[in-house]
Amino acid sequence: MNLKEANFKLKIILVEPRGPLNVGSVARLCSNFNVDQLRIVSPKCDIYSLETKKMALKGIKFIEECTIYESLIDAISDCNLVLATCGRIHSPKEYEQDSLENISTWIRNFKEVKNLAILFGREDRGLSNKELLMANKVFTVNTHKNFPSLNLSHAVSIVLYELSKITKVDDILKKKALDFASPKYIEDSFLEIENLLLKTGYLLPHTLNTKISKFKKYIHRSETSKHELDILRGIIHQINWALENKNKI
Amino acid sequence: MNLKEANFKLKIILVEPRGPLNVGSVARLCSNFNVDQLRIVSPKCDIYSLETKKMALKGIKFIEECTIYESLIDAISDCNLVLATCGRIHSPKEYEQDSLENISTWIRNFKEVKNLAILFGREDRGLSNKELLMANKVFTVNTHKNFPSLNLSHAVSIVLYELSKITKVDDILKKKALDFASPKYIEDSFLEIENLLLKTGYLLPHTLNTKISKFKKYIHRSETSKHELDILRGIIHQINWALENKNKI
Repeated sequence: MNLKEANFKLKIILVEPRGPLNVGSVARLCSNFNVDQLRIVSPKCDIYSLETKKMALKGIKFIEECTIYESLIDAISDCNLVLATCGRIHSPKEYEQDSLENISTWIRNFKEVKNLAILFGREDRGLSNKELLMANKVFTVNTHKNFPSLNLSHAVSIVLYELSKITKVDDILKKKALDFASPKYIEDSFLEIENLLLKTGYLLPHTLNTKISKFKKYIHRSETSKHELDILRGIIHQINWALENKNKI
Repeated sequence: MNLKEANFKLKIILVEPRGPLNVGSVARLCSNFNVDQLRIVSPKCDIYSLETKKMALKGIKFIEECTIYESLIDAISDCNLVLATCGRIHSPKEYEQDSLENISTWIRNFKEVKNLAILFGREDRGLSNKELLMANKVFTVNTHKNFPSLNLSHAVSIVLYELSKITKVDDILKKKALDFASPKYIEDSFLEIENLLLKTGYLLPHTLNTKISKFKKYIHRSETSKHELDILRGIIHQINWALENKNKI
């Protein structure tokens, strides 16, 4: 199987990986499954080391062509669907998680996804809550509850295997268009929303994160389109204008 | 998910592994998916090394409790279903291969498998033809045709993930009993069959392997039961008796 036949271009994004063996293994897996691109956010090891190369074998071209980013939001700026992996032990309790299987079935529903990003967090503590909120959905690979923690590269292998079962051709007539606001667009919109809510006193700086998290989760869960988000932004702009021009209304 | 809930007890069997990191990673995966037992045939590295332990983490108990065998046939002697993995690059051309997905669907058809063995070959050259013939079925994990070769531990991770989706409970009414002659029983029967066919001149020592391979493949593909194999053995015994007692008939 071959991810180039799927209804998306797959970008594998590692966030702050520490293990050169892991990075090399992931590069090899990228070539095994014909991934489109490997991206790394702030690597915490030498990704050009001999150890990495030894594990990468023919996948070395994914290291050579790898783009390195300083922040996750930059790494996903051109991605229209972003999925984050989350091990059970790292999962914030209140987080709704899907299984890899369900996620894979869900992706099949769309005609074309264009750039699909899958985020993999740090070996020891996964992705932060803030990073998880940049994803449309969060999912987990189900493992034994007493020893749930998969090694990073093994998690990648399982995800690539499951996604490689998806092909463009199956049931094309039943498919719908993917029409979500991109995670980057949502992040940008929330900067405006946060400012307004701080200004009106609905949010206080020290409780901002907790309150805004719930709102962001709602936006993701509702599979909000760009058009719907633009309506929300229009309202924000109008309220902002009204607040600044109280004398005129 | 949890392999203890499946309709089989899973024995992971590594044949002559060379990489201590691989052995350690496989042990960790055994604990991640609650495998029943890890068995190793003639390890070509120190499986108790620090490297192995570092990768195994909590899976170290699978190394400590691991049984080591001198030959593959001993390692599968108590297994009633034996499946062998085969990478595309190692696959003998004439070999019929199933995909992991098909194999997993097929296993769901049985009420109870008892001891299921999955064989993983050497890192560099997989399993020999003779070893493949000890398995009821041979399967592959589908990968990109230009870079098909998965690292050993990543192949294990994908197989465990797919098999862990099988549970005892689904559609119990539709299931049938697994009633194959065990691979060990087939091997033993073939020793008798080979002797007879050599004696009668049907087989010559230098062409024995090729001819007998075809016959063995047929026995596996036909999902022969112990009872059916016993009929064949009865015939062999009778012919042997007749050959040795030509004067009496």
